[in-house]
Amino acid sequence: MAGLLITVEGVEGSGKTTQCRLLAQWLRGLGYRVRETSEPDGTPLGVAIRDLFEQDGAPFTPLTEAFLFMAARQQHVAQVIKPAVDSGEIIVSDRYADATLAYQGYGRGLDLQTIRELNALATGGVLPDLTLVLDLDAALGLKRLGNRARDAFEKLDFAFHHRVRQGYLEIAREEKDRIAVLDADRPEEPVHAEIRKAVGELLRQRGLAHGV
Amino acid sequence: MAGLLITVEGVEGSGKTTQCRLLAQWLRGLGYRVRETSEPDGTPLGVAIRDLFEQDGAPFTPLTEAFLFMAARQQHVAQVIKPAVDSGEIIVSDRYADATLAYQGYGRGLDLQTIRELNALATGGVLPDLTLVLDLDAALGLKRLGNRARDAFEKLDFAFHHRVRQGYLEIAREEKDRIAVLDADRPEEPVHAEIRKAVGELLRQRGLAHGV
Repeated sequence: MAGLLITVEGVEGSGKTTQCRLLAQWLRGLGYRVRETSEPDGTPLGVAIRDLFEQDGAPFTPLTEAFLFMAARQQHVAQVIKPAVDSGEIIVSDRYADATLAYQGYGRGLDLQTIRELNALATGGVLPDLTLVLDLDAALGLKRLGNRARDAFEKLDFAFHHRVRQGYLEIAREEKDRIAVLDADRPEEPVHAEIRKAVGELLRQRGLAHGV
Repeated sequence: MAGLLITVEGVEGSGKTTQCRLLAQWLRGLGYRVRETSEPDGTPLGVAIRDLFEQDGAPFTPLTEAFLFMAARQQHVAQVIKPAVDSGEIIVSDRYADATLAYQGYGRGLDLQTIRELNALATGGVLPDLTLVLDLDAALGLKRLGNRARDAFEKLDFAFHHRVRQGYLEIAREEKDRIAVLDADRPEEPVHAEIRKAVGELLRQRGLAHGV
């Protein structure tokens, strides 16, 4: 069988990393082969690119940022995602193409159509089967992060993160069939339960349900 | 006055760096304000991107390479080239947009039209007023490098570098008005003299000649 690509998106502090881990654990428990990955740091190049954002220096233009994330994405698709999909794995990716639309597009004002075209190139047409947007008030998300290390994005102001959140909601409205929006202002368990439900439905639709 | 952008292109070992320096010295001697720069390493980001190519790891796809160079280019234009052009300087850049066409396009087989579209984005329409292609047999160029440090490109085979050389010649045929091809299989001085002639003509055309 061809595998599935499930992506998890949301503002900082929305619980993406935790929910990716819980989803992967649940799927593994059901006997699926699961690959957990993330952007931009899903490859050694991606890790290096993420680190570029933490260096001092002239601020990057929104387009520079987009090109950097596209490089990470293209390499991630070629090196990790495409081989895993082809071998029948379920890939759970903490961020993917929508993140550039939300952050560089809605957040920093880069033309959305340009980002869509760059994403089409960078992904080589490997699109998510399901995207879970963990929706959370940006101020709440940043508060949740507490003292955890904050990267370049997190140093930006609330207005920016608010635009990112609204961007994700707008993207979700435009692609209702692919994207599920979940209220992330709840404890882990009910959010995970809702994710199980959405993923279970996808598996049944694709004829891949066994024991879901 | 608005400044000028002069780019110098060619295979490894073709003498670009030397000729850029000689050209800048000559122009400064004539009283012009000159900014010497280079790609990908014309900004701190560009230096970091160049270094990515020297790390071990999975080989990058041609498209990943293109995205990385586009990130370097966009930042180079925004941070260095555009401000210098706007302030009336003459910019002499060791490599620019044509390098991605030659290396990732003709060399590695990435679709040329895709690269042209990415270049249009990355340069924001800041195109060279004159491009000097230092044409040299690829095997000669690599031989000239001798024991000098060789980057990732230089580890590639002669066939690759031959395609890059042919690519530059093809690009020059398509844009005769912008691009001058110079035989680089000669000592520095006659090559420099020919460059002075081409740049002098450009300055006269633009009404910027004083003492040329």
